[in-house]
Amino acid sequence: MKNDDNRIKIGMIGLGYIGSEVLELITRKKEYIFKKIGKYLEVIKVAEKDLSSRRSIISRHKEITFTEDPGEIIEDGSIDIVIELIGGIEPSFEYILACLNNKKFVVTANKDLIAKKGPDIFDAAEKNEVDILFEASVGGGIPIIGPLKTTLAANNIYKVVGILNGTTNYILTRMDSDGLGFKDALRIAQELGYAESDPDSDIMGKDAANKLAILSSIIFNSRVSVDDVYKEGIINITEEDITNARELGYCIKLLAIGDLLDDKINVRVHPALIPSEHILSSIKYENNAVYFYGDNVGEVMSFGKGAGDKPTASSVVGDVINIARNFDRADPHPVFGCTCFTKKEIAAIDDTVGKFYVLMEVTDKPGVLAKISKIFGNNSVSIHSMIQKPSRENKKGSASLVFIIHDVLNRNIKKALEQIKGLDVVDSVKNVIRVEELEN
Amino acid sequence: MKNDDNRIKIGMIGLGYIGSEVLELITRKKEYIFKKIGKYLEVIKVAEKDLSSRRSIISRHKEITFTEDPGEIIEDGSIDIVIELIGGIEPSFEYILACLNNKKFVVTANKDLIAKKGPDIFDAAEKNEVDILFEASVGGGIPIIGPLKTTLAANNIYKVVGILNGTTNYILTRMDSDGLGFKDALRIAQELGYAESDPDSDIMGKDAANKLAILSSIIFNSRVSVDDVYKEGIINITEEDITNARELGYCIKLLAIGDLLDDKINVRVHPALIPSEHILSSIKYENNAVYFYGDNVGEVMSFGKGAGDKPTASSVVGDVINIARNFDRADPHPVFGCTCFTKKEIAAIDDTVGKFYVLMEVTDKPGVLAKISKIFGNNSVSIHSMIQKPSRENKKGSASLVFIIHDVLNRNIKKALEQIKGLDVVDSVKNVIRVEELEN
Repeated sequence: MKNDDNRIKIGMIGLGYIGSEVLELITRKKEYIFKKIGKYLEVIKVAEKDLSSRRSIISRHKEITFTEDPGEIIEDGSIDIVIELIGGIEPSFEYILACLNNKKFVVTANKDLIAKKGPDIFDAAEKNEVDILFEASVGGGIPIIGPLKTTLAANNIYKVVGILNGTTNYILTRMDSDGLGFKDALRIAQELGYAESDPDSDIMGKDAANKLAILSSIIFNSRVSVDDVYKEGIINITEEDITNARELGYCIKLLAIGDLLDDKINVRVHPALIPSEHILSSIKYENNAVYFYGDNVGEVMSFGKGAGDKPTASSVVGDVINIARNFDRADPHPVFGCTCFTKKEIAAIDDTVGKFYVLMEVTDKPGVLAKISKIFGNNSVSIHSMIQKPSRENKKGSASLVFIIHDVLNRNIKKALEQIKGLDVVDSVKNVIRVEELEN
Repeated sequence: MKNDDNRIKIGMIGLGYIGSEVLELITRKKEYIFKKIGKYLEVIKVAEKDLSSRRSIISRHKEITFTEDPGEIIEDGSIDIVIELIGGIEPSFEYILACLNNKKFVVTANKDLIAKKGPDIFDAAEKNEVDILFEASVGGGIPIIGPLKTTLAANNIYKVVGILNGTTNYILTRMDSDGLGFKDALRIAQELGYAESDPDSDIMGKDAANKLAILSSIIFNSRVSVDDVYKEGIINITEEDITNARELGYCIKLLAIGDLLDDKINVRVHPALIPSEHILSSIKYENNAVYFYGDNVGEVMSFGKGAGDKPTASSVVGDVINIARNFDRADPHPVFGCTCFTKKEIAAIDDTVGKFYVLMEVTDKPGVLAKISKIFGNNSVSIHSMIQKPSRENKKGSASLVFIIHDVLNRNIKKALEQIKGLDVVDSVKNVIRVEELEN
């Protein structure tokens, strides 16, 4: 056994797009990683449900046992670390729990699972005195979770603002820079392979919500589930909104925001107008970024590719290295653990306060603004600025009104807009988008 | 002793601007950090050469022994980790070596020392089987070194481009956004406390060179000293250069760049024109950023405050947490170690290739451009573009020529410009600045 002390035995479950790259990366960098940490990472067994389609990679790895039965990895007492890369909730959840219960350390990129089943998973890891790491579940290759647990660990991070979904950021960038409509931009994103053919998880904000739930759990030290996250997608954003935003000095991004409201956790994914001068406006195309506000460090941001096989594999193997560096087979113990040591409530979106952009189509005649302003006033909604523009549809007798609304309770603006929609001089409220000033 | 296993005993040498904040941060966050890592960080002894000026902080910490003799910390067998925050080479070097030789783990923010004395320090750490961590030495509070050693460790990072000095970035930002001259911008930076009253270390590039040496040693796994770094400061940058750059679609930044040239390390700090569209152009005022190119992760960037007591303390305490998390008093062993396992040569700046911006003042008459072009051609210097502008000084009969030179060997453009300066039609070569396209 002593001869094995610098060899870390790894099992992999899942050999798809990401899994294949992880296997190749570990193989390619074996000596390089040994020189850095004094341990050899050795993948000894890989489970994949359809091996027949993996002949090429199998033929390149004679040293590895390939199987279609994940149980062979879960039950293999010689395996130190299991890498789970099949994704989704089931059967990943079952496999990971079984690995943890067999006292194996686990590395995963599975954001759905961590965001949904976090409590069960971390409880199992704690009970069995092992670690489960998941850097690749948020922001692909960008170091985010690691720094939060280490370099930034002395901080109370009181706010996170992320651009966490590359597909939607690509779509909004193309709409802004090339004047494309939403559907055309989505089609191009799909052609380039950024968007899934069923892109709902991206454009409805669910993918970003998973990642936000994971990040918020870490920074607020309290478990946040994806179900706690308020979600609005980008399907209603039009080129008209983007043009209006630009004229007002803003650009539109799909943001994932976590902060505290009276010590309740306020987590939301929605499009927002942000100042064109803010660095998050510079995050373009499929790139991701996460912006943290810490009580000591101030503002820090990480930026990079948030998806793709190679960046994701970089983070997966980084996690394996973090475990391997400290791994003591005689006395395995967790290094990072779960840091959700408190239990905070989740704030209701109606109770949150924010600025808003409101675009409406109205009858172009005197007295209209007075009627609208009266309803806003009655509901404690205060107008910061208003611009009247010709109706986009060139409808005779119509005009567009663009409002920026001062900080307001969400329930108040909601109520005001319901009443405004009932005015006979208002054709439609075309869009309502939050404005995040992201002030320094 | 068993009762002490979750208490990490810390000694501090230096209680200045940073040291005071580190002490307060550790004290303020004692319970918070315990909840995260299961260890109490306890500063038990602090050495400061002039205690009489520290009455206020001393009176707040009855539990700590304050001394003017660092030897009391170096020789105290009960101390696990020493935090060195006096800065400079001597006597820090002597103190740190003594701590390492007494098998104490060390955390420092001392960039001068690491960049100059790295080999001696890391040799001593290795020999004594302890770690020395120095996250705060580069980029203040921004997590940079930690991610390189952990999350990104599977990558070969083949290039780093950093904005690593906040003072010069502040000066260049104000020159660009407000049309200030260098001297006015420097004066304002000094008034705001960004620049030292003797600002040479900032504006001549030495501070950035220290940080680049540290980063390059890590990414290229080969020791780079600050003396290996080619340095050009920003004192010759004028508002005219900044305006010309802007018209050409660039902005001017002081960059610290490390990359490989035929497997030799090419490390240089100099002002450079970079595309206005690149995200590094969005790094403004006193902020810092580091942009890495990795073979797997692609491009990643970290951004934040690169200086100041609170951000720096954040990184110092982050390092202490990293050591404490794994600390085993019965069997202390290094977690990170030094990863300079190869020895690469340093490339000479004359052998490097790059694009250039050249501004010259010439006699405004036919045939001048032909004479200049001929010399460029004779020296294998190829002109990408040229704009003629009226002389800034409105000198009668004079004109300004702005050249962008295609990728060229440094020695060739140097030689060409020497010859061009000798032409009777050339009044002066006013500036020569590198152009870094930073292409994706």
